[in-house]
Amino acid sequence: MSVFTPVPESALAHWLKDYAIGRLVELKGISAGVQNSNFFVTTTLGRYVLTLFEGMSRAELPYYLHLMAHLARHGLPVPGPIANLHNEYLGTLQERPAALVVRLSGASEMAPGVEHCARVGAMLAGLHLAGQSYGRRQPNPRGPEWRLATAQAVRDFLPTDERTLLDAEIAFQSAQALANLPAGAIHADLFRDNVLWDTDADGSVHIGGVIDFYFAGHDALLFDVAVTVNDWCSLPDGGLDGTRCTALLAAYHAERPFTAAERAAWPGQLRAAALRFWLSRAADFHLPRAGEMVLVKDPNEYRDILRLRIADTPPLPL
Amino acid sequence: MSVFTPVPESALAHWLKDYAIGRLVELKGISAGVQNSNFFVTTTLGRYVLTLFEGMSRAELPYYLHLMAHLARHGLPVPGPIANLHNEYLGTLQERPAALVVRLSGASEMAPGVEHCARVGAMLAGLHLAGQSYGRRQPNPRGPEWRLATAQAVRDFLPTDERTLLDAEIAFQSAQALANLPAGAIHADLFRDNVLWDTDADGSVHIGGVIDFYFAGHDALLFDVAVTVNDWCSLPDGGLDGTRCTALLAAYHAERPFTAAERAAWPGQLRAAALRFWLSRAADFHLPRAGEMVLVKDPNEYRDILRLRIADTPPLPL
Repeated sequence: MSVFTPVPESALAHWLKDYAIGRLVELKGISAGVQNSNFFVTTTLGRYVLTLFEGMSRAELPYYLHLMAHLARHGLPVPGPIANLHNEYLGTLQERPAALVVRLSGASEMAPGVEHCARVGAMLAGLHLAGQSYGRRQPNPRGPEWRLATAQAVRDFLPTDERTLLDAEIAFQSAQALANLPAGAIHADLFRDNVLWDTDADGSVHIGGVIDFYFAGHDALLFDVAVTVNDWCSLPDGGLDGTRCTALLAAYHAERPFTAAERAAWPGQLRAAALRFWLSRAADFHLPRAGEMVLVKDPNEYRDILRLRIADTPPLPL
Repeated sequence: MSVFTPVPESALAHWLKDYAIGRLVELKGISAGVQNSNFFVTTTLGRYVLTLFEGMSRAELPYYLHLMAHLARHGLPVPGPIANLHNEYLGTLQERPAALVVRLSGASEMAPGVEHCARVGAMLAGLHLAGQSYGRRQPNPRGPEWRLATAQAVRDFLPTDERTLLDAEIAFQSAQALANLPAGAIHADLFRDNVLWDTDADGSVHIGGVIDFYFAGHDALLFDVAVTVNDWCSLPDGGLDGTRCTALLAAYHAERPFTAAERAAWPGQLRAAALRFWLSRAADFHLPRAGEMVLVKDPNEYRDILRLRIADTPPLPL
């Protein structure tokens, strides 16, 4: 989230006349984030987040917005999109596709403990269970085909040792049989900054929000678990913290038990998830597209995670 | 809300397996209320309210539940119902129709000031605007036909002066032309105990929830405004507090301007709204149905409000 397209208050006040949420009280840009323009919007009737979609095709947005609506109405803390007076979630503001969603409360926890990881595991299982009845389908935009194409695009920019690592990993991943893994709608980007923790009156914390579904798609559920574990359960050097890892996976398993095929595929999916983020960061680094406004993150972090997952091949600890 | 049907934790824990909201942590009966059995339900993934519908027909419940879902997804603080893994809002628990809804935060304000009334007026307009695109239709269960039938049923129990008042009011209401009033989905019971006020970090309050939609139906929007004004803006003797009344109506009018037909109909609709609650309370008092569990409220309060509205005939103060 960030602000790439400014929105004048007068333009928003006019736009809000198409909604039933009262008058604009406050508009405030959100500075975090890498992809879209985001704002906190307070009206006389409530608090919302406004997103202007930057460089995303309008055709793919209904999949994300309806998925968020689907998960929210299944009781999960996902920001449901707000329908306007014409019953539409998606509008146009400042010549961008734009949507309002519910503003959830809480803040990210960048140094999660065992309890956080257990709660995230249970929440991820809840998202997967609810997602099974979601009627729309759109492929994971960072799935196997994208990984193959992106590997081709970046490999010539890499030093020899990384090119060798990449070629070997692409060959390994192409040989994996994934068709028998349970699949469905996955978040695919459930990093620590996309979970908001809210504090109860007694001081305990719970998940107040799971945000940023704009990398979601249909794919193996286990891939989503692997993405989540690689971010939530890694040590500073990229190695897995066994305690946090077990806590997350056990909590997930209690809600949606892993299948035999998933146990077998686990070490490979941890690698696939690491590869996906190494590739996207390497592409952002080596192939910045003119006019594209993206915060470039360090590709080496996920190169190192990939190397460690190959060396470790950790089994599913359950 | 109240508890007429107990729910064992084991039965609820089993029932929740059909939802994606995790495991049962706490179940607590809610003692307030007059009609259904209600419980606070906390799970590992969130906080909800469980309602067991007592003596309501299963066929009429989807209208209410989908209306709540519709208003919630239009950005209003209405408790959205929770869908289960089969995408259904309505289930069966302890042999009753049952539903989970989002638990909203806040507490009722039984001594509202001018600012509360203004916020309620704006919120009611938001509900009416969003309700215009609601696709289902069910008549107001306490509309003109019900009022006529209930007047017939209770009149012989009333002392002479009340019977005269009732007969005259029924005749007056029957002569009113209501067809040209804007209509739509109305709450029809927006009393002070059905609005939850939540406190912001800076100490200011906002409406955190509008609850109990189980008297909702399709009727004149102005009738809903009149029900709301009679409760929120009455003095202890039943007379209208002009300042609160103007604040509520002006805030409503700013969002959805009153039409000329509504200005003309206003004094009569205030009387119709008073009549409706006098009648239901008189029926509960004089005609208690065997086995029906209803908290009987004082019918005289609304008899007096009706008398005062007839004496005052207050115009729309805008």
